[in-house]
Order: sequence, then structure tokens, then C-alpha cells
Amino acid sequence: MGNSDISQVKALTFDVFGTVVNWRDSIIREGVKLAKAKGLDVDWPVFADRWRGGYGPSMERVRTGDLPWTNIDTLHRMILDELLEEFGITGLSEDEKQDFNKAWHRLDPWPDSAPGLTRLKKGYVITTLSNGNVALLTNMAKWGGLPWDCILSAELFKRYKRDPKVYQGAAKLLGLPNDQVMMVAAHKFDLKSAQEAGLRTAFVPRPGEHGPDVEIDTTNEDWLDVYATDFNDLAVKLGV
Amino acid sequence: MGNSDISQVKALTFDVFGTVVNWRDSIIREGVKLAKAKGLDVDWPVFADRWRGGYGPSMERVRTGDLPWTNIDTLHRMILDELLEEFGITGLSEDEKQDFNKAWHRLDPWPDSAPGLTRLKKGYVITTLSNGNVALLTNMAKWGGLPWDCILSAELFKRYKRDPKVYQGAAKLLGLPNDQVMMVAAHKFDLKSAQEAGLRTAFVPRPGEHGPDVEIDTTNEDWLDVYATDFNDLAVKLGV
Repeated sequence: MGNSDISQVKALTFDVFGTVVNWRDSIIREGVKLAKAKGLDVDWPVFADRWRGGYGPSMERVRTGDLPWTNIDTLHRMILDELLEEFGITGLSEDEKQDFNKAWHRLDPWPDSAPGLTRLKKGYVITTLSNGNVALLTNMAKWGGLPWDCILSAELFKRYKRDPKVYQGAAKLLGLPNDQVMMVAAHKFDLKSAQEAGLRTAFVPRPGEHGPDVEIDTTNEDWLDVYATDFNDLAVKLGV
Repeated sequence: MGNSDISQVKALTFDVFGTVVNWRDSIIREGVKLAKAKGLDVDWPVFADRWRGGYGPSMERVRTGDLPWTNIDTLHRMILDELLEEFGITGLSEDEKQDFNKAWHRLDPWPDSAPGLTRLKKGYVITTLSNGNVALLTNMAKWGGLPWDCILSAELFKRYKRDPKVYQGAAKLLGLPNDQVMMVAAHKFDLKSAQEAGLRTAFVPRPGEHGPDVEIDTTNEDWLDVYATDFNDLAVKLGV
């Protein structure tokens, strides 16, 4: 499957958390800001990792039907409420909790994301294809200056990646055959599922996603269509 | 309902055909181009009006259940096939028909649309809320340089405007209460339905929509929240 003909690709669908934005440092920044305002003493890197760590299991509860369809804003809030208790964080009003939960709408892009996307947009339709909900992705794009042509989300299909219907549903909404759409992600499991659903794949590893102490698998694989070190390199590899 | 408090509005949802883009002159242009390439003799203004005229009745077939969910690209094609026969247009390959059907992806914005939207985008989330399908709206935005934050379409709800679920579904995807969303349209019937669904309304009449010989209702109404002569005037009225 790797190195297959990618000249027919018309649209690039991007994973977002980790691939486009640096969620960990952004959540730490938001935590530090909250701590200053409210006089809190919290280990924010640990808090950020735990918040993100709750994401997979909570989506799994939706996938298995233990929860009805629930978007990421609501899942983030469920995890946040647990963590506030666990970390002994008290004294936040409901408005402050809602605003802190929206820290996920204010994640900063990696330095190459906006310029790389601006370049890629000249040759391709560029869209999100994230488990993040539409409002989150829309607000994040305004926050970070991300020039998406379109906001696609698992929310539109009421199924989370890596359900094949998310990838195929995106291609259908874009009016394209599956193999004219390329999934771009920093996570091989996402790309594997995209490929099984019929999409092309581009791997852009983000070594800093989980902080300085966590090693990331950045190796290329035979089955990947494109390997790029960042979005500018992806533009070069795709000839834009 | 008119002149109600609009200071809480966070997002503007735009009707597209007629409101943002000049469909009639664009379809005529595409027809003339096709005619030159293929040696056709067709009254393109009449053809354009008939093509657009088939749109309402064909959506009505979907609304009533006579047709299952069918997106606008497919409805446009069904109407096109009838018109090609009626106008005696022969000699088009399947590729040429598909490309001509995509004339609706290449509609030109009104002169104020892109600059007005660029200005409105600084103060609001700006999104399409059109019966046009996602691919059509996405390609049209690239064609015309329309800086949408988000592409919302009736296609996402598998219901056509003026079903209230389209307006309310858009607000929900944007993460906002209905009354923090303002529908912008050149058509009062669209705004009336949006208001009944709980949204705010801005009327931007487009006197040229149906060509020089068709008079358009451009009068203000008590029940409208905002009246603007174009998108730049809308930005002024909304204080952006």
C-alpha cells in the first residue's frame, strides 16, 4: 500500500490534537493562568496528562454504547469534574469551570502548522477530521489562525475515529472517492484505520506531543504513503 | 421580535445562493463558456433561471419523502439532465456533464461578499448555512475566496431549510444557544423560519439576484433584527 499513486489526491484530512496543535503545553499554560488567578497549587503537567488520558477511555464508553453519543466538550467536562475533585481544586464557579473546559478550544498550533497549512491549501482542500467537536475545532481555528477550508468532525457522524464510517463519511461529504483523500496524522493507529477505510496516508510525527520525557515512535513504515517531518515538509513532499 | 437585543450574538450563519453569490450571472457565464467550446446555441439566461427554478420543487420531493435524502449536487444533475433534453443540447460526454453540473461550485461572490465577510470574521464566527452540500460550499469558498470559519449545510442534518432542525442543528454544532446565532439571508422566508426556530435575523436584500427584469422585495420588516444593504453595511450595523 505504501508509495502508491498519490497524484489523484484532492483533499487532506487532518487529525488535530497532537498533529496540528500542541495540546499539552497549551493546557499547562491555561492551568498556570487559572492557578495564578485563583491561588491554586497544582502539578499542571501531570494534570494535563491525566485530562488527556481520560479522553480515550471516555470515548470508548461511547463506542461501546455505555454512554449515548456525547461530544468531546462534554467528555472533557466529565473528566475535568473528576480531576478537580482528585486534585483537591475547589472554589471554582460554574462559569470558571466552563471556561477552563474550553481551554481545549484554545490550543496553540505547532510553529509550522499555520504556515504549512496555508501552503497546502493552495493545492488541496484542507480540512480537520478530528474527534473534537465542531465548535471546538471552529474556535480553535480562530484562536490559532488555522486556514481550514472546512471543519469536519466525528461529531457529524456521531461515531469516533477509528470507526471506518468517520473516514469514509468525510470523503463522501467532500464529494470524493476514498482514495482521493489523504489522512494526515501524528499517530499511526489513526492512519492504519484511515488506510483500511480506503484513504491515503501521511505520517507527520510530533516528537514533543507528550512532553520531553516521553519518547514517540517517529519511524517510517512500508505501508505509509507519505512521511513528512512537519507541514512544510509535507507541502514539499506533495509538490505544493 | 425586531430590534431585540443582538449584543449576545456570537455567530452568523449565511444563506449562500443569492445572498453570498450571484448564481444567475455565474451560471450564464459557465453556459457561454460551454457553448463556445461545444458550438451550442442556447438562451443561457433562460437556462439559468430554469435550472435554479427546478431546485425548489426537487427539494420538495425530498421534504415530502417522494425522494430519499438526496444532496444538491445530485438534484442539480437530475434537473440538468431534463434541461439538456428540453433545450436539445447533445454531444456532451459524461465528464462534460459532470463538470457543467459543478458550475454551481464555481459561483462568483457579490463584490462586497469576501471583503465584508473578512471584516465580520473579526467579530463573529461566520459560517455557511445553505441547502448546498458540503463539497459544493467548500469548493465555492476556494473559488471565491470566502473566508468561512466553518462549513455548515443542510446535508449534515439530512433535511432542507426551512426545517427548524437545520437552524437549531447549526446552533448546536456551534455550541451556542439559538438566540446567540444570527441567520443572514437575502430571502425573508428563510429568515422567518430561522426566527421561528429561535435565531436572530439579518436581511441583506440582493436586488440583482434574478436579473435586471425581476423586481425583488427589498423592504424592511418590523420582525427583522437587522437590515443591511450589503455585507460591509452589515459589519457597520453589527459594530465590527
